[in-house]
Amino acid sequence: MILDTVRQAIKRYRMLDKGDKVLIGVSGGPDSVSLLYILSALRKELKLNLHIAHLDHMLRADSAKDREFVEGLARRLKIPVISESIDVMRLAEKGSLEEIAREARLAFFFRTAKKIRADKIALGHTRDDQAETILMRIIRGSGLYGLSGILPKRKIAGFQVIRPLIEVPRRQIAAFLKKKKAAARQDPSNLEDIYFRNRVRNKLLPLLREQYNPNIGELLANMAQGVAADYEYLNAAAGKALLRLKKGGSRGKVDLDLKGFLKLHPAIQRLVLRLAVSDLAGSTRRLTFQHIKEIEDLIFNRPVNSVVDLPRGVCIVKKKQVLAVFIKQK
Amino acid sequence: MILDTVRQAIKRYRMLDKGDKVLIGVSGGPDSVSLLYILSALRKELKLNLHIAHLDHMLRADSAKDREFVEGLARRLKIPVISESIDVMRLAEKGSLEEIAREARLAFFFRTAKKIRADKIALGHTRDDQAETILMRIIRGSGLYGLSGILPKRKIAGFQVIRPLIEVPRRQIAAFLKKKKAAARQDPSNLEDIYFRNRVRNKLLPLLREQYNPNIGELLANMAQGVAADYEYLNAAAGKALLRLKKGGSRGKVDLDLKGFLKLHPAIQRLVLRLAVSDLAGSTRRLTFQHIKEIEDLIFNRPVNSVVDLPRGVCIVKKKQVLAVFIKQK
Repeated sequence: MILDTVRQAIKRYRMLDKGDKVLIGVSGGPDSVSLLYILSALRKELKLNLHIAHLDHMLRADSAKDREFVEGLARRLKIPVISESIDVMRLAEKGSLEEIAREARLAFFFRTAKKIRADKIALGHTRDDQAETILMRIIRGSGLYGLSGILPKRKIAGFQVIRPLIEVPRRQIAAFLKKKKAAARQDPSNLEDIYFRNRVRNKLLPLLREQYNPNIGELLANMAQGVAADYEYLNAAAGKALLRLKKGGSRGKVDLDLKGFLKLHPAIQRLVLRLAVSDLAGSTRRLTFQHIKEIEDLIFNRPVNSVVDLPRGVCIVKKKQVLAVFIKQK
Repeated sequence: MILDTVRQAIKRYRMLDKGDKVLIGVSGGPDSVSLLYILSALRKELKLNLHIAHLDHMLRADSAKDREFVEGLARRLKIPVISESIDVMRLAEKGSLEEIAREARLAFFFRTAKKIRADKIALGHTRDDQAETILMRIIRGSGLYGLSGILPKRKIAGFQVIRPLIEVPRRQIAAFLKKKKAAARQDPSNLEDIYFRNRVRNKLLPLLREQYNPNIGELLANMAQGVAADYEYLNAAAGKALLRLKKGGSRGKVDLDLKGFLKLHPAIQRLVLRLAVSDLAGSTRRLTFQHIKEIEDLIFNRPVNSVVDLPRGVCIVKKKQVLAVFIKQK
């Protein structure tokens, strides 16, 4: 059953091609261990060339045991493993520990995938991770991009990241491991500042499931699937509009034709602004609905030469004919 | 403050034009009574010609007192009032009471608006109604359309319906009435099957506000605002695609060019299917994500002449060159 769900998801999202070299991120927790077993079971059928990457974040005293566990598992399954240890706590002196840990992990995966020339990086996110992510984004405020949740297949920094378990509910994972009599380490997600996710996982989602709708997990996942397609379409339209509106600009600066911008549909206007900021700042994290509202106020109501300051040092100035978006010099 | 919020919303969504004849739906509850006071305060400024419509659903023994209350208020404010009583319970022998009550109320508003030649129908939905609606739709499963929530301005059956209070939180309503020393009847929303909405209103939303994010109401409203624009853009694109793909058809039937359909983006494919069904069946209520998935399976995987049955007697048959969508003869 779990194998069928994964096979279907792999097919639907074209996650894997025959002969792919796949780097599997394995923390040692139930999700990634199941992913490892499942891809290992599909290895012949899909002619996969599997490798394992394990990062020891050194956040718990016994984290080395996770590493030993994963390395033992790799030996038994005859899959090469690349491990590394990084003192994430020391990196995280400033900023969110969860964020830093995530970035360190991804950087390690990318480094390793490059070294072994992997075609894909496979991660163990489940349908429950999907549901939690969407609820968190709803609670913290989100637009279409956030409501797309975790994408089944996504290019990050040039690497193809796939989530074969994205349609598998977590309870099936536990049942799968039990049936296989396979062990896994504790889910290593008790970092301080993923407290919010833990509350959503352990309190809010069960409450919604028990008292409001038993199918909430599936429905949130369906919603994400639909919204992701909608977002993709809109984003492509906005990308084309952005290209059309660009009137020169240089490194760290882009000028958008104001007259053309005003002719766009409001939905595309907002996405064009997001894309322009993302191009300059590398991401739109921390760009909120309030910022977008302020930019709209700048464009529609304020006089020429008015300025809006955005996170990550991005600045927008309304000129007579263009909207100038640039990174402020420090 | 509440007046400013309403003024801004009226301006942003172009709800009212000078000289408009506006029919205000007034139940007698705090929301619609506040709406009445506010529009009455804006009457001169916007040169409004106000009328009141009150429907007595006869669902409570003392519902006639709501009617008397509203008629008294109308006299004091010197606004003409049209009241009617309908035994909704008798209409609702089959089907959902909430649904029937809503339909009876809307039909009464439309009938009355037509009679007095009103330009707009104003209803008292608040930002809290918006937040509840979106949460309910998330919990029950929804796509972009549902996540758009309650639209500030929307044409229904040819009538322009506006919601001037859509950005006003309910706590401001209570404060407004208290300050004005104005009375209102109990909110008459204790129908049996709006139990679900009441749970969302009285339990879930307060829980999210207190334990997860104090700004949840505003964030959900922002989300709805963004998503509504996105949906409008996509829906317009799908409408154009549908026109292009129509290969004849007759009353109760439409043929869609299959080859052209397959070239569309998946997001537009789904919306085209929804629009085609909506054109035939009058609405897409009860059309779920599972139905859309089944249609996609029909199109992509099943042999020619396969059939999918949908709610409201709609049928889809895959032919060699077209997708035939029609209402089944009984």
